[in-house]
Amino acid sequence: MEKIPDRILLAHGGGGILMRELIEEVVKRIGSADAPSLQDSAIVEIDGSRIAFTTDSFVVSPIFFPGGDIGTLSIYGTVNDLAVSGARPIAVSLAFIVEEGFPMESLERVADSIRSAADRAGVSIVTGDTKVVEKGKADGIYINTSGIGVVPDGVSVSTDAAKAGDVIIVNGNIGEHGLAIASKREGIDFGVDIESDSAPLSELIIPMLEQGFAVRAMRDATRGGLAAVLNEIASDSGVGMVVDEAQIPIPEAVLSGCELMGYEPLNIANEGKFVAVEDGSDAERVVEFMRSRELGRNAALIGEVVSEHPGTVVMKTIYGGQRVVDVPYGDLLPRIC
Amino acid sequence: MEKIPDRILLAHGGGGILMRELIEEVVKRIGSADAPSLQDSAIVEIDGSRIAFTTDSFVVSPIFFPGGDIGTLSIYGTVNDLAVSGARPIAVSLAFIVEEGFPMESLERVADSIRSAADRAGVSIVTGDTKVVEKGKADGIYINTSGIGVVPDGVSVSTDAAKAGDVIIVNGNIGEHGLAIASKREGIDFGVDIESDSAPLSELIIPMLEQGFAVRAMRDATRGGLAAVLNEIASDSGVGMVVDEAQIPIPEAVLSGCELMGYEPLNIANEGKFVAVEDGSDAERVVEFMRSRELGRNAALIGEVVSEHPGTVVMKTIYGGQRVVDVPYGDLLPRIC
Repeated sequence: MEKIPDRILLAHGGGGILMRELIEEVVKRIGSADAPSLQDSAIVEIDGSRIAFTTDSFVVSPIFFPGGDIGTLSIYGTVNDLAVSGARPIAVSLAFIVEEGFPMESLERVADSIRSAADRAGVSIVTGDTKVVEKGKADGIYINTSGIGVVPDGVSVSTDAAKAGDVIIVNGNIGEHGLAIASKREGIDFGVDIESDSAPLSELIIPMLEQGFAVRAMRDATRGGLAAVLNEIASDSGVGMVVDEAQIPIPEAVLSGCELMGYEPLNIANEGKFVAVEDGSDAERVVEFMRSRELGRNAALIGEVVSEHPGTVVMKTIYGGQRVVDVPYGDLLPRIC
Repeated sequence: MEKIPDRILLAHGGGGILMRELIEEVVKRIGSADAPSLQDSAIVEIDGSRIAFTTDSFVVSPIFFPGGDIGTLSIYGTVNDLAVSGARPIAVSLAFIVEEGFPMESLERVADSIRSAADRAGVSIVTGDTKVVEKGKADGIYINTSGIGVVPDGVSVSTDAAKAGDVIIVNGNIGEHGLAIASKREGIDFGVDIESDSAPLSELIIPMLEQGFAVRAMRDATRGGLAAVLNEIASDSGVGMVVDEAQIPIPEAVLSGCELMGYEPLNIANEGKFVAVEDGSDAERVVEFMRSRELGRNAALIGEVVSEHPGTVVMKTIYGGQRVVDVPYGDLLPRIC
C-alpha cells in the first residue's frame, strides 16, 4: 500500500482504492466502539423498528445533463442507497450549498426536478437547509440529501452475506450515467445519444423483495461502477466471484464511447443499476421478474459467487480468457455524482 | 416585499428576511401535499415512534476558530436541532465535500474534533460520504451532518405552540459564536478573548425535559441570532412578545465587540444557546434548573408572550423606551456556520 498523500487529491473522490484508503483513515479516527464503520447506509434500531439511514452529497458537473440533473440525482441517489439496504424509503432531507451569483432560474429548475423525482420515488422532503458561499467558493450548487427508510420484517440484505453458490444479477445496461456526464462535460459527440440511467431503484426493488426472493446482498453500482461493487461484496463477504463478460449488458454506444475515451465500462458510474446476489434457488425467476419492470428490462445473470480466490473478482472474457476485475486506484471521471 | 433577485446573493444565506423568502420560494416548488414546509427539524412517525430528522451543511470560515472548529460545529449544530425539537439525539450522518489540495493534517484534526464532539453528545456517526472537487470549487472543506433522534412519549414542543402568558427563557450569554468567528476572520482583536459557545444542548435539554417542566416551544438561536428565533416563534405561534433588554445576558466583550464592528448583539449567531417558552407555571424553577448546569449557568428569564401585536417582538430598552426587534433583511456575518 502506498503512503497516504499529505494533501487531498481529486482522485480521492473517485470511488477507487485511494478513496477507500481515505475513508478508512477518517473512519479510524471518527468511528466509536459501537459504530466501527461508516457504511453507505446504516441500519439503526429504534423502538424495535429497523431504520435505514443514509447520506450523500452531490457535486456533479455539469448540473444539467442528458437524462437528469443534480436535482433528480440527489433524490434518486439517496433513495437507491436506502432501497439496496432493503428499506422502503420514507423521508429525505435536502441541504443546498449555493454559490453567490447562481441564477435563480437554475435553482428553480433544480427545485422542480427535485419535486418530480420525490413524487416519482414516493418520498417526502421533510427538512432542509440553505447555505450561500462567495463566488469562487463552490461551483454553482452542491446538494446533500440524507434519507430514512424502514426495513420490513423478514428482509435482511447485507454486502457481507454473499455465499459460494449464489448468483450475481444486474438489473440492466451499465455505463450510461458516467458516459452521459463525460460527453456533456467534454462536449464530445459519441454519434449516438447516451442518457443517464438515473432512476429510483425502489420502484424495482420493493416489489422484487415482496416476491420473497432469497436476495442476500444488494448494492447500487455508482462511483467505481460495476467493478467496485462486485469487489466490495466479494471483499465484505470473504468470497470470490466469477463473472461472464458476454452476459454483462453493455450498450453499443457505451462500448464505443469507452473505446474513444479510453475508459473501462465496468468502472463507469451508474445511477439506476444495482447488483443483487441471490442464493441461486430462484435465479431465473428473479431475472424474469426484473425484466417485467421498466427499471429491469435488460436484467441479466452475470456470474456466480465461488469459494475460491476470496476477495477477488475474475471475469471470463469474450475471447475465452480470464482476467481479474480490479478497482481503479484513483479516479477516471471526477464529479459524476 | 421586494422582488426576488434573479441571482443568488451572499445575503441569501444569512438567516434574515432574504433567506426566508428564498426558502419559501424553493419550498413552494418542492413541498408536496403532505410536507408543505421544510422545517429545520421534522418529526416523522414510524411504527408509532416519533423520529426527529434534521440536516445542516457547514461552510464556516475559517474552519478553525476560538472555541471550536467546523468538526465540533457540525456535530453540535445537528444535535442541537434535534434537542430543541424535544428529541433524544441517536445517530448522525457525515458527508464531506473536500477541495483538492486540502491538507490531510487538517482533515485529521477535523476528524478528531468530530469524534470528541460525538462522544460528548452521545451520538453515533453511522453513515458517511466523501466528495472531492477541484481546487477553487470549494473553500477547504464543507461538512453536512444529518441526524435522527427519538421524541420521548409525553414530550411535545413546537415553535407554533407559544401562548399569551408564557415566559421566555434563554440559557445564557448571547453573541459569542458570531463574534469569535468575525474576530478570527477579520483578524480583529477585541481586547478580550471571545470564544464560540458551540456545545451540545442535549446535555441541558434532556434532563430539563425529564423534570416535566411545561416547555411549549424551543429553538436554538443560530443564524439571525436571538432576534430571528424570537420572531420565528412569535410568527409561527401568532403571538406577540415583549422582552426586557436589561435581562438579556450579553457579555461585556460582546457588547464592546459589537459596538466596534457596528453589529446588533441580538442578530449575532450562537451555537450553544436556545430560547425556551414555558407556560409560566414554573418559570423560576426552570431558570434555577438551567443555572445548576454548565450549559445554563447564565440562564435568564428575558420576557413574556403577549396577545397584543401578534408576530411582533417588542423590546423594553435599558433607557426605558420600547423598540421593535427586527429580523435583519440580509446578512451581516456570512459563513458563520
